[in-house]
Amino acid sequence: MQDFKIKIEEAIKKHDFNKIRNINWHEWELADLADLLLNLNKTDRAVLFRLMPRDIAADVFSYLDKENKNSLLKALTDEETRLLLANLKPDDRTDLFEELPGQVTQRLLNLLSVEELKEVRFLLGYPEKSVGRLMTSEYVAVRPEWKVKEALEHIRKMGGNIETLNIIYITDENWKLLDALELEKFILADPEDKVADIMNRSFVSLSAFDNQEKAVQVMQKYDVSALPVTDSDGILIGVVTFDDVLDVAQEEATEDFHKGAAVAPLKNIYREAGIRELYFKRVGWLVVLVFVMLIASEVIAFYEELLASFIALAFFIPLLNCSGGNAGSQSATLTVRALATGDLKTGQLLSVLRREIFVAFSLGVVMAFIVAIFGMITGGAKIALIVGITMIVVIIAASLIGVLLPFFLARISLDPAVASNPLITSIVDILSLFIYFFIANWFLHIM
Amino acid sequence: MQDFKIKIEEAIKKHDFNKIRNINWHEWELADLADLLLNLNKTDRAVLFRLMPRDIAADVFSYLDKENKNSLLKALTDEETRLLLANLKPDDRTDLFEELPGQVTQRLLNLLSVEELKEVRFLLGYPEKSVGRLMTSEYVAVRPEWKVKEALEHIRKMGGNIETLNIIYITDENWKLLDALELEKFILADPEDKVADIMNRSFVSLSAFDNQEKAVQVMQKYDVSALPVTDSDGILIGVVTFDDVLDVAQEEATEDFHKGAAVAPLKNIYREAGIRELYFKRVGWLVVLVFVMLIASEVIAFYEELLASFIALAFFIPLLNCSGGNAGSQSATLTVRALATGDLKTGQLLSVLRREIFVAFSLGVVMAFIVAIFGMITGGAKIALIVGITMIVVIIAASLIGVLLPFFLARISLDPAVASNPLITSIVDILSLFIYFFIANWFLHIM
Repeated sequence: MQDFKIKIEEAIKKHDFNKIRNINWHEWELADLADLLLNLNKTDRAVLFRLMPRDIAADVFSYLDKENKNSLLKALTDEETRLLLANLKPDDRTDLFEELPGQVTQRLLNLLSVEELKEVRFLLGYPEKSVGRLMTSEYVAVRPEWKVKEALEHIRKMGGNIETLNIIYITDENWKLLDALELEKFILADPEDKVADIMNRSFVSLSAFDNQEKAVQVMQKYDVSALPVTDSDGILIGVVTFDDVLDVAQEEATEDFHKGAAVAPLKNIYREAGIRELYFKRVGWLVVLVFVMLIASEVIAFYEELLASFIALAFFIPLLNCSGGNAGSQSATLTVRALATGDLKTGQLLSVLRREIFVAFSLGVVMAFIVAIFGMITGGAKIALIVGITMIVVIIAASLIGVLLPFFLARISLDPAVASNPLITSIVDILSLFIYFFIANWFLHIM
Repeated sequence: MQDFKIKIEEAIKKHDFNKIRNINWHEWELADLADLLLNLNKTDRAVLFRLMPRDIAADVFSYLDKENKNSLLKALTDEETRLLLANLKPDDRTDLFEELPGQVTQRLLNLLSVEELKEVRFLLGYPEKSVGRLMTSEYVAVRPEWKVKEALEHIRKMGGNIETLNIIYITDENWKLLDALELEKFILADPEDKVADIMNRSFVSLSAFDNQEKAVQVMQKYDVSALPVTDSDGILIGVVTFDDVLDVAQEEATEDFHKGAAVAPLKNIYREAGIRELYFKRVGWLVVLVFVMLIASEVIAFYEELLASFIALAFFIPLLNCSGGNAGSQSATLTVRALATGDLKTGQLLSVLRREIFVAFSLGVVMAFIVAIFGMITGGAKIALIVGITMIVVIIAASLIGVLLPFFLARISLDPAVASNPLITSIVDILSLFIYFFIANWFLHIM
């Protein structure tokens, strides 16, 4: 045992976490592991505990007495531990540390102030923008075997510091979530009834690993003002309340707006963003798109002779490009937003495409008609025919790209919002130049 | 009196509502008016009541006994009345009918099912997208002079059919709102205390005429799950709950996304929108922008000779246009969203502009550098200089337009979201062609 302790201490000192991770944990007695844990210094103790497999960690934790439990929890969120773990690459953190046992997470959330919580949330191992980063311990839980009046007594005792008590949670003795009931149910019920009698055992819960957008969608669908969060064993670890969800909905929308215009998500709100921040959030895509648009320049350069012979072709370049870009932006924005709100699933691509082709064709015909009239006046029948046909083909191509690109991004698990209006416009510009000159070349030289 | 009745009946028959509106109401006794009202047939009764000035209508209503009150309320929402009023132009409706007295609105909301409510909301005279169209009667109100246990008794009695009881409202005997308290406050309080003792008289309320976006902003700011709605005298007429507000937040965001891509707001969600709907919501701006972009064609046509002499100039048209459009879209989207969420007020234009010029200049310099190198390779030093300088000027101009247009729209009380990416792109395209050819002409011919 002493050997083992020294080995572990050395491995921790060398940051050789993998070695500890791969110990054959199950050959050790619970009592020995608990002993070992308590004999280590604070930081080592925290690290060892986090490196234990989830089931062992849960067992060891429940083996500890209350005082040792608390000192372990403190060690887990202690400044030194935080620094040590913050220095790990996020990927390593994910590989090394399993999900904390639900009871530990729950107690941690209870132990910490809201401010502290913000700082240590990353320690819990929940990814950014996950429900785990959003949840709080602002809830009261009661047991099904209690009488309603006992439950109310408990709510009175516990509820003093809690901001919103709209929903009361019912758990078993292991904190496994059994039901979620509105506070009013307890008030409307007979005080002598058992809590179990007023339960309906129908509730929605979130996983701490769910994306925050899911919280918005679930809350919107089920109209409940707070959602319970459980770990993978169904243990209640926290709640997410409507005010945070409303903030998330607004922030996510703002972020998607910005992405839609090729602006990287801002850290601050626009009013408070500095010149430096705005510059760096905007310059990335702008520069990338300058390089992309150099291809457009190359396309025109390639057709230099054709253009020099028929200079009237140049008149229509911005008009055709811009029209294509506009139609593409419309399709992309409709698709991106529908994917973000969950109105569209990635499986519905075909039906969307079918509809889009019809719409794009109808739009293209109207726009082609207008531009052809103008082409007739400026350059005669051939130019009219060229710009008209180009317009129809461009509008259909642009609309299809506007649908396909977001779907493609979603399918490969990227954010569909990357299909921003500027990106779509640039791609469509290049494509429409190709289409334009190809059709022009054919009509003016080959026919 | 009999004369008056016949005159009124005739005016109603002729739909001469203005005549009734302009009666010198105050010279009549309350009892006579109430009598007249009860002697008219159902539809006429409803119309006359709605044409009364607000204060008179309130007095007449409270003069009626319970039975007559109810029959009047029924008449107000009756099929025939609805048809009659639905046929009026919305503007006429606003001119003719004042806000209903709070007590009447409140009782109406209580009387109707959620389904009925949807159909008759327009009758209440609240504009589209106003809080009045969103509110329900899902609340329980108590009096300050009651004991907490009496209040709880009342909540138990009334709360059975109400979906969420998170907030209890405290009103005086005229239903004037005095406070809004969380249900838990009643549970945590001593049952023998007076309600007045647990009041803090600090609450936020909405007007039924407020825009629904205000409900989102207020709820987000104050983190309350339901907001009371009062009429202009502070009478509680309904509540707006978090679930509806969450829906509004999402719908408004979706609408702004669509507007940002020049798509008119859809009636259905994208998945369910038909080809016809999508076509008509998209074609408007696309066609308008084709006409706008014809100006761009004219600009190029105007510089035909210059272009024919220096065909390399054509290579950079899409690149410069697109870069300007992208920068303009970024600025416009940042501004539009910040105005929509209330992060920016119209008074902050100057500070935004100042920052924007710095950011745009820095962006322009980087992009100019890239495009100048390419210009050097393709067309030599002069072309490099032309495209470089043009890029800087275009990026600054585009960014300023992106900020100015939404602010301008907001200032003249239009929706800033009309400054869509396609609109900005089109305006910037025309402008950047002007800038480009002006600079090119100067360098190639005059210098």
